[in-house]
Amino acid sequence: MVATVTGRLYGVGTGPGDPELLTLKAVRAIGEADVLAYFAKAGRAGNGRAIVEGLLKPGMAELPLYYPVTTEIDKDHDEYKRQITAFYDASAAAVAQHLAAGRTVAILSEGDPMFYGSYMHLHVRLADRFPTEVIPGITAMSGCWSLSGLPIVQGDDVLSVLPGTMGEAELSRRLVDTEAAVIMKVGRNLPKIRRALASAGRLGEAIYVERGTMPASRSMRLSEKLDDTAPYFSLVLVPGWSGRA
Amino acid sequence: MVATVTGRLYGVGTGPGDPELLTLKAVRAIGEADVLAYFAKAGRAGNGRAIVEGLLKPGMAELPLYYPVTTEIDKDHDEYKRQITAFYDASAAAVAQHLAAGRTVAILSEGDPMFYGSYMHLHVRLADRFPTEVIPGITAMSGCWSLSGLPIVQGDDVLSVLPGTMGEAELSRRLVDTEAAVIMKVGRNLPKIRRALASAGRLGEAIYVERGTMPASRSMRLSEKLDDTAPYFSLVLVPGWSGRA
Ligand SMILES: C[S@@+](CC[C@H](N)C(=O)[O-])C[C@H]1O[C@@H](n2cnc3c(N)ncnc32)[C@H](O)[C@@H]1O
Ligand SMILES: C[S@@+](CC[C@H](N)C(=O)[O-])C[C@H]1O[C@@H](n2cnc3c(N)ncnc32)[C@H](O)[C@@H]1O
Repeated sequence: MVATVTGRLYGVGTGPGDPELLTLKAVRAIGEADVLAYFAKAGRAGNGRAIVEGLLKPGMAELPLYYPVTTEIDKDHDEYKRQITAFYDASAAAVAQHLAAGRTVAILSEGDPMFYGSYMHLHVRLADRFPTEVIPGITAMSGCWSLSGLPIVQGDDVLSVLPGTMGEAELSRRLVDTEAAVIMKVGRNLPKIRRALASAGRLGEAIYVERGTMPASRSMRLSEKLDDTAPYFSLVLVPGWSGRA
Repeated sequence: MVATVTGRLYGVGTGPGDPELLTLKAVRAIGEADVLAYFAKAGRAGNGRAIVEGLLKPGMAELPLYYPVTTEIDKDHDEYKRQITAFYDASAAAVAQHLAAGRTVAILSEGDPMFYGSYMHLHVRLADRFPTEVIPGITAMSGCWSLSGLPIVQGDDVLSVLPGTMGEAELSRRLVDTEAAVIMKVGRNLPKIRRALASAGRLGEAIYVERGTMPASRSMRLSEKLDDTAPYFSLVLVPGWSGRA
């Protein structure tokens, strides 16, 4: 019997955009990797890859994982679920082939890998079969509240991280019931988020941040943002610590 | 009139313990700083300082900020509040003196500075008077769930960050009402946290992590932890993403 030495799998958090927000450990893992894998929209370069651009070694193998084009299918539809599951299965198989051949693979994940990251879909398919290490990253929310110089939680504050995809009434209820909140996945949900904040009486405190720590970063009070267009990379912060001292 | 050039203030997140989890930006800021400031318990070296030990330049000025000894005073007591406010005022004044003299000061903060960090008390006292930059850090929770290989939130999951200091009924109510939770400030609150998790029907999923990413790090299912002692550096993770795929 021949013992096979497999490669190592790294799930690497790239942070929210600024390449200086990579950790030393992430830099080392990318340096050790034979193969750099990352998710990207078809025909696009991939935001995670753009963040680590300056670290790529000449001749490093790349494994872009292109999301299937599913824009015309409803996310709750079985056909969407079938296609996306098939995509994660195929992506995991492609990574596994490298690992089985003894090659170390770094899979990039924007922000922190285990925090709403696509990497998680590969992690649950691979981590029980290959030596795996997850390298945490600066989350988008940390990047955004730091950039804004906004203390978010202190002492006994509760922080609620709320996807902007949830229903308006539910979002409003949760905004009433927390000291601080981060609303992720803003994009086309912004008008609804604005209404939920208003009905919870918290619109005045809310800070909108788009492309936090990226070159075209912008941040403002949500009440002073006059239009309702928001890019994919945007979130809303509602600070706690009201009795600050 | 003489124009005075003040020094720069950096609030530097050190991450949860592993020095490799510092960001490149944190390393640069510490390298630029004339003065390294950090909070510490009287007679102790300071955990933040220990994390960056390897980066200190010979002859770098240090400004340890020793918490007043208040162990015998109740936290809700006015005398506690008076002493701790006086301490933050005096600490801010000591930092301001260096900044006013043109020296750049890096104030260390374990994990992420704006996320329950003592740095926040100095930030609100100094950031309007001196050029200030907050450098986000890997939070303790990111360090702990990465270490445990534990996907925490995906898709439409809500994450609730709950201080273990809150009342048992309130904690239990919030644990029922969220997909994922992180319970911070465990320490002596562990027996109460255990009861709240049990009454919320979530004890079986809970993962206990102590000293995550530090040398003596340990992690286990909370249901398999037989004693109720927990150090200051410990937290509990309740993962979401139950329908993982
Ligand atoms: C799929 S989640 C990924 C979160 C990421 N893993 C993290 O640790 O923050 C994508 C959402 O994160 C937020 N986001 C990511 N990067 C951002 C940035 N640079 N600025 C603002 N929001 C960002 C947006 O709300 C976006 O819809
Ligand atoms: C005052 S808060 C500071 C949080 C920190 N600023 C962060 O970003 O995570 C201290 C609490 O963080 C948690 N904590 C900090 N470091 C930790 C570690 N290495 N492992 C486990 N928990 C930790 C504990 O729950 C502790 O009571």
